[in-house]
Amino acid sequence: MEIAILLIGDEVITGQIADSNGAFIARMLRESGFTVVEFRTVRDQVAEIERAVRELSSRVKVIISSGGLGPTSDDLTRDGITAALGVPLTLSESSLRNMEERYRARSLPLNRISERQCFFPEGSVIYPNPVGTADTFCAELPSGCFIFSLPGVPKELKTIFTDQVLPWLFTLAPEITPPIAHHLKCFGVSESHLGSVVESLALPKSIVIGYRPVTPELWLRLTEYSSNREGGSAVLRDAVARIRSAVGDEFFFSEDEKETLASSVGALLTARGATVAFAESCSGGRIADLIVSNAGASAYFKGSLVTYANDAKENFLGVSHEALERFGAVSPAVALQMAHGAKVRSNATLAVSVTGIAGPDGGSEEKPVGTVFFGITDGVTEVVVRKQFLRDRNTFRAFCAGTALDLVRRFILGFPLEFERR
Amino acid sequence: MEIAILLIGDEVITGQIADSNGAFIARMLRESGFTVVEFRTVRDQVAEIERAVRELSSRVKVIISSGGLGPTSDDLTRDGITAALGVPLTLSESSLRNMEERYRARSLPLNRISERQCFFPEGSVIYPNPVGTADTFCAELPSGCFIFSLPGVPKELKTIFTDQVLPWLFTLAPEITPPIAHHLKCFGVSESHLGSVVESLALPKSIVIGYRPVTPELWLRLTEYSSNREGGSAVLRDAVARIRSAVGDEFFFSEDEKETLASSVGALLTARGATVAFAESCSGGRIADLIVSNAGASAYFKGSLVTYANDAKENFLGVSHEALERFGAVSPAVALQMAHGAKVRSNATLAVSVTGIAGPDGGSEEKPVGTVFFGITDGVTEVVVRKQFLRDRNTFRAFCAGTALDLVRRFILGFPLEFERR
Repeated sequence: MEIAILLIGDEVITGQIADSNGAFIARMLRESGFTVVEFRTVRDQVAEIERAVRELSSRVKVIISSGGLGPTSDDLTRDGITAALGVPLTLSESSLRNMEERYRARSLPLNRISERQCFFPEGSVIYPNPVGTADTFCAELPSGCFIFSLPGVPKELKTIFTDQVLPWLFTLAPEITPPIAHHLKCFGVSESHLGSVVESLALPKSIVIGYRPVTPELWLRLTEYSSNREGGSAVLRDAVARIRSAVGDEFFFSEDEKETLASSVGALLTARGATVAFAESCSGGRIADLIVSNAGASAYFKGSLVTYANDAKENFLGVSHEALERFGAVSPAVALQMAHGAKVRSNATLAVSVTGIAGPDGGSEEKPVGTVFFGITDGVTEVVVRKQFLRDRNTFRAFCAGTALDLVRRFILGFPLEFERR
Repeated sequence: MEIAILLIGDEVITGQIADSNGAFIARMLRESGFTVVEFRTVRDQVAEIERAVRELSSRVKVIISSGGLGPTSDDLTRDGITAALGVPLTLSESSLRNMEERYRARSLPLNRISERQCFFPEGSVIYPNPVGTADTFCAELPSGCFIFSLPGVPKELKTIFTDQVLPWLFTLAPEITPPIAHHLKCFGVSESHLGSVVESLALPKSIVIGYRPVTPELWLRLTEYSSNREGGSAVLRDAVARIRSAVGDEFFFSEDEKETLASSVGALLTARGATVAFAESCSGGRIADLIVSNAGASAYFKGSLVTYANDAKENFLGVSHEALERFGAVSPAVALQMAHGAKVRSNATLAVSVTGIAGPDGGSEEKPVGTVFFGITDGVTEVVVRKQFLRDRNTFRAFCAGTALDLVRRFILGFPLEFERR
C-alpha cells in the first residue's frame, strides 16, 4: 500500500520554517511497515492544493496531508481538498458543538472566524481532535484513494497521527503486521564501524537496522518485519546479542528508547547511592548542562567547576601554579589536580576533570589541537585518560562531555577506562 | 519566475533524516526575490525521478534538485534527469580529469565506481564542484524549463548554491533585483509583542519582516524589495530606527547577521578590557557553554561555578549555611552571596549568579516553580533581579542563561537591570 505525504503551507515553501511533520509521519509509517513514495509541499492556494491531491490520488492509496486547517483566510486546505473531491463543503453540527464545548472549557469566546473550521467536505468522516480546537477529517477521492487531513501544529499532528491515523491505516491494510523493534545505544563507536560489524554478522534479512547519530552518542533501532511475532522476537534478541558481543558489551549504555548517556549515568549513580562532581575546562559547562537536563539530577549531581582561565584552575580548584607553569594547563598532572580539587571541594563520591585544546590556536607538536586529558578519582583510585578529538568547536565540547560521562559509567561498572573509539 | 525544489533520496522519504537542504534553498531564494511554488521529495528510483522532473517542468521555469549524485548504485538522479531530457548520458573528460586531480591531492586511489559521477546528460552545462569530488550540472528540458542538479551533502550544496546557482538565476531573470536586508536582534521581547509593535508602525509595504526566534533571543530580518536601491536603503534605515525606538533601544543587542547574544557580550567585554565569571545553579552550566562556544572566550571569561547542590554553594562559593537555612537557596540573599563568591574567587571584573526553581517540584506560594533570582556585582555595585520563567526544563535553562548574559550587557552599557519582558 503506497502512501504520499502532502504538506501545505507558505511558511514551509518560503523556508521560514523547516518542516518536521513530514519526517515524523514518514518515520512512523516506515516503523509500522508502510511505504511512503513521495513528500510534496505546496503553497496555501486552492488550485495548487487541488492539483496536488488529484495528481497524487491517481497513483497512491492514501494521502496524508498536514497544515492549512486553521481559522484564518490563508488556511485553504479544506477548500483545496473539497475541490479535488468535487463535493460541497458542509457544516458539521457535531463539530460545532465540540468546538463550543472546548472554548467554554477554556473560558474563551468563540468567534465567527473559528466556525470555518467546522466545515468539511460532504461525505467525509470527521475525527474529533483531542488536543486542539479543530476536528480533522478523512475522505475518499473518486480514484479510491483516501486523504486524511491533519493540522500542522506538531503536537496536535503527532497525537492524532498516532492515535487515529495509524489504527485506521491498519484497518485499511490488515495484511500489514507492525514490525517489532529493539533499541541499542552506544558511545565510543562510529557509525561506519558499527555498519561494518553489522555487515560482517550477516543478520537475517527480515531485520532492518536504522542508525541515528545523536552526537556523540550513536543510537540504533533494529526492526523485525517478519509476520511470525514469537519467532521474530527471538530473531531480534539473537541479533542484539550478536551485535553487542561483536562490538564489545562495554560500549552499550542502554536499550531504552528514551534514555540518553547522561540520564543512564544518572540512573546508575542513583542506584549506587553515589554522587558526582566535575572540573571542566574545554568542555565549558557542557557536562553540567547535560546532567541537569534530567529532572531529579540534584540526587546525584553536586556541581561543576568550569575553569576556563588558568587562574580559575588555581582559585576554584587549587591546581598548583607550578604544575600549570611546568606541564601546562593541558597535561596529565593538571587533569589529576583538577579532578582532585573537584573531589575535595564537592565531597562527591566521584570527580571527573576535562582539560584540552579546543583550537583553533594553542596546539603544539606534542599536544596538537584536539588533545584532551580526563582525570578521574574516587579518592582512592586516580586515573588519567588521553583522547584526541578533531572536531569543530561545538562538536568538540560534545565529545569532551560525552567522554567524561562515559568515564563515570565505565568507572562504576568496572569497564576499561582506556578505550579506543571504534 | 517560478521555481520548484526537487529533493531526491530514500533516507528523506523514510524519515531517517529530516531534510534541511530544501528549507535552505527556499530561504535563500525568497531572500533573493525569487518565488518557490513547490517542494517535492521522491525516492531513489529512475522512473519516479523522471516523472517528477517531467511534471514539474511543464509548469515552472527552474527546478533545483538535490541529492542522488553520489557514486553508489542507489544514486540515480543523473539517470532520472537524463531520461526526462530524452538524451544519452555521456562521459565528461574534463570532469574525469578534475576528479583524478582531487583524488590525487588527497592521496586517495580513484576507484571505478566514482567514475559514474563523471557522466552527464548530453548537452548539459557542467559546473566544477569546489568542495566535493563530483561536479554538478544544469540542463534545459524540452519545455524550456531548466534543471540544476546539486549534491545532497549540505556543506557542498550550500557552497554551490550560493556561488553558482544564485548568480546563474540572476542572469536568467535579470529583471529581478535582489532585495536589501537588515538584521535586528533583541532579547526580552516576545514575537507577538514585536509583531504588534511593527503592525502599529504601518511600515512601507515594500518592507517584509521575518521573525526568527532563536530561543530565548529573537532575530528579525527586514527585507526591502523596492528596485530603487538608494531609496530602498533609506526606507530600511528609517524602519529600523522606528522599530528600535518603539520597542526600546535597550532591548536590541546587535544588527549583525552572525552575532549571538553571547558573542555580542563577549565583544563588549573585550572592548572594555573586562572579564566575567558566573555562579550557576538552575542554569546548570548553560551560561558557560554559550560563552565558550565563541573562539577567543579566554580573553574575557574566567569561569563558572556550577553549584547545583546546596553544599556546593557553600563549598565552591562560600555561601553561608545560615543564609541557605534562613532564606532558602532560591532567594535574593543567596543570589548576592553567590555572585560575591564568584567575584572574589575569580577576580573577574564582573560576576553574575543565577539561582531558581526549575521544577517540576520545589515551588511554593511565595516562590512558585519558575522563580529565578540573578545577582550581579562589580565589587562596588550589587543588584538582585527577580524573574519568572514558566517553561519546560530545557527552555527554562535557556532563559536563565540568556538573562544572565543580557544583565552583563545592560550592566556595562548602563541600561536598566530591572526590565519587564515585552
